[in-house]
Amino acid sequence: MKKVTIGLIGYGVVGSGVVKLLNKRKNYIKGKYDTEVRIKTLCDRSVDKKDTALLATAVKTTDFNDILNDPEINVVVELIGGMNPAKKIVEEALKKGKHVITANKELIANKGQELFQLAQANRVHLYYESSVGAGIPIIKTLTEGILGNTFEGIFGIINGTCNFILSEMTEKNYTFNQALEDAQKNGYAESDPTLDINGMDSAHKLAILVNLAFGKFIAVKDIYVEGITHIAQDDIEHAKSLGHTIKLLAIAKKNNNAIEARVHPTLISKSHPLASINHIYNAFVIDANPLGNVILSGEGAGQMAAATGVVSDIINLSLNLETHLLPCNIYTEDKNISLNKIDDIQTKFYLRFTAMDKPGVLSKITGILGEHGIGINSLTQKEHSQVKTVPVIILTELTSEKSLRMALTEIHKLPVIKNKTVAIRMEKLS
Amino acid sequence: MKKVTIGLIGYGVVGSGVVKLLNKRKNYIKGKYDTEVRIKTLCDRSVDKKDTALLATAVKTTDFNDILNDPEINVVVELIGGMNPAKKIVEEALKKGKHVITANKELIANKGQELFQLAQANRVHLYYESSVGAGIPIIKTLTEGILGNTFEGIFGIINGTCNFILSEMTEKNYTFNQALEDAQKNGYAESDPTLDINGMDSAHKLAILVNLAFGKFIAVKDIYVEGITHIAQDDIEHAKSLGHTIKLLAIAKKNNNAIEARVHPTLISKSHPLASINHIYNAFVIDANPLGNVILSGEGAGQMAAATGVVSDIINLSLNLETHLLPCNIYTEDKNISLNKIDDIQTKFYLRFTAMDKPGVLSKITGILGEHGIGINSLTQKEHSQVKTVPVIILTELTSEKSLRMALTEIHKLPVIKNKTVAIRMEKLS
Repeated sequence: MKKVTIGLIGYGVVGSGVVKLLNKRKNYIKGKYDTEVRIKTLCDRSVDKKDTALLATAVKTTDFNDILNDPEINVVVELIGGMNPAKKIVEEALKKGKHVITANKELIANKGQELFQLAQANRVHLYYESSVGAGIPIIKTLTEGILGNTFEGIFGIINGTCNFILSEMTEKNYTFNQALEDAQKNGYAESDPTLDINGMDSAHKLAILVNLAFGKFIAVKDIYVEGITHIAQDDIEHAKSLGHTIKLLAIAKKNNNAIEARVHPTLISKSHPLASINHIYNAFVIDANPLGNVILSGEGAGQMAAATGVVSDIINLSLNLETHLLPCNIYTEDKNISLNKIDDIQTKFYLRFTAMDKPGVLSKITGILGEHGIGINSLTQKEHSQVKTVPVIILTELTSEKSLRMALTEIHKLPVIKNKTVAIRMEKLS
Repeated sequence: MKKVTIGLIGYGVVGSGVVKLLNKRKNYIKGKYDTEVRIKTLCDRSVDKKDTALLATAVKTTDFNDILNDPEINVVVELIGGMNPAKKIVEEALKKGKHVITANKELIANKGQELFQLAQANRVHLYYESSVGAGIPIIKTLTEGILGNTFEGIFGIINGTCNFILSEMTEKNYTFNQALEDAQKNGYAESDPTLDINGMDSAHKLAILVNLAFGKFIAVKDIYVEGITHIAQDDIEHAKSLGHTIKLLAIAKKNNNAIEARVHPTLISKSHPLASINHIYNAFVIDANPLGNVILSGEGAGQMAAATGVVSDIINLSLNLETHLLPCNIYTEDKNISLNKIDDIQTKFYLRFTAMDKPGVLSKITGILGEHGIGINSLTQKEHSQVKTVPVIILTELTSEKSLRMALTEIHKLPVIKNKTVAIRMEKLS
């Protein structure tokens, strides 16, 4: 009988989900995997106030050193999130020869490089399946599922909160604020939803995926990030009438030694499989060579989804206690690969101008776009009877961020242009 | 440096794809995984006639014993398919302490039970990722990706040939024969396509999935199987006008200790994600508790897709040479679980009757259905000016196979009914 003796640090939503799931499946795990999983010690800064009925026999503490210094504990499960003190805990645990399981995307995105090396040097494992896509096994798929291929791209819907909000705006005609409130009511958004809706959560996850797919650690701050707070109901409607839907996508591509990595709202065709991924569902498209596109989708948020990823890690660890090197801990970095700047990346754009309903307006707008070399794919001027401004929707051809910004700056100086112009990228997904 | 020294048996489409892919990625595998992969010996019954330029330094033989008896070879890759002599080869290899990688679905479906035990007893591994879904890592996802969950269902499109044919019938209005010919022309169907189009290929794969998901080996012959040869262009059209599309689905569900396993053409709603899986793409929906539905999709056929699965197995094996037990080789069987007979399973049906265009026909048909307790959800009688028969389309409520067969037998005795009635199941997928 193998023994996995756990020190659990963090007893919030995910931590208590892990305890619930382990408790339910204890006998099954023992029978099938010949493994006894026991949570010996629980550390949480407000452990006194929490319902720990399922951990009646566990030691309770507020000091993580009680776990780090216990030689009987061979696995530390870190579920507190954030950089401090999580980084210190994980480092210390690895140095002390303990395996670590974490769901901490910020930590892996920023410090994966060092931590993987530390795990290797100490001949222990660092598992982090739940850091991206919760229980959807995207880490395992990239590191063990599809091997011998090169990855040319990975993109998808990787934040459940944003996808829920955009889905509600699309299906129920909610405003952004109504949809956000609904997400909070359903437990799909935190009371402070900033990191989700500003795209930073997706950026952290994308940094991890870029490393695994392309063998390149990139700084999260170097990823171009745009959130969804500026998406208006109007844009959702216009996108619909153009046969598109708006999704917050994380996109990474590799061309020879140049990679691009960006997170932004994106108009995609309604016929693309990603268009039907709604609510809290996430979906990852892996563009592998020679395998082609592989899609993996499922619930990417919620207590039991995240708990599933952690429990998968625990069981896999029990099967790999004697393994020398974990595929998701292999540290390779190709120094020749560099990250492209957003200024150099060409995409198509959906533009919504708010213009005075006067003759000559369209020719002024299109004239300036033309001067900056921006081709126009289609133009729609919507009727609007009640006010003196009309929305003008333009879909551009491929253009650089830089040209677009310059053109928009110039167009904004026109006295006929009211309000800020909305620019949302369009992506033709393979 | 780890050494994987391979004896490759079978140099057809998949075998030569594996050699191509390994050759391309040799240095990458060496650098990243610290593994030297070498094909020492190639065995193929017509090895003389094949292009083995990429295997210039390998021993060529027509006798698989040259591989089995070579102590330097630690991995046997079996890619000949079928039961004989594949079964003997795999058994002998395992007994001799060699790891085995196979893409042989027939072998694993029928003899997995014994082979997994044999692998365990000899402390070696048996990998078979390509046996289901080619390079799509469905085996890995079920055995390592989503753990600590119970599986309540697994269903999907698991035969690329049939999906290609049905897609062509739907998109190009091809007849079955035209679509089959096109599939053969594109290399997506064998010159003898019987095992694909009669559903047996899907049944073998489903047997493997049922074992992995539910812990129960079922005999392939006990799976209810219906192929796609009876699907007419008319049915494709009627399904379309009802907001549905026809797919060959493999479906397994578990309710307490009863499982059902069946393969048949199925009308599914156009809005379900599976409806947009077309051509040679496969898709698997795993209904996990508590994780919910996870979808995995990708190219399920073709040389490089299958080769990817085999190469993934080779690399994973190199990382697990010292592991005691492979999750996909864990042999557990729950004796309490039993397989339901198709007679006991309730589904809805799409029925197409060919009836004389006479008064009273509808009441006769619906009357007999009613006598057998079969509720009617909708009824459409299509106009048809040129001949004296009209198609009558009925969508039923849930009914058992048995009641339906009895009702149809009776309806066929009506003199107003011409031709055989078409009955296709409808499934409301979660």
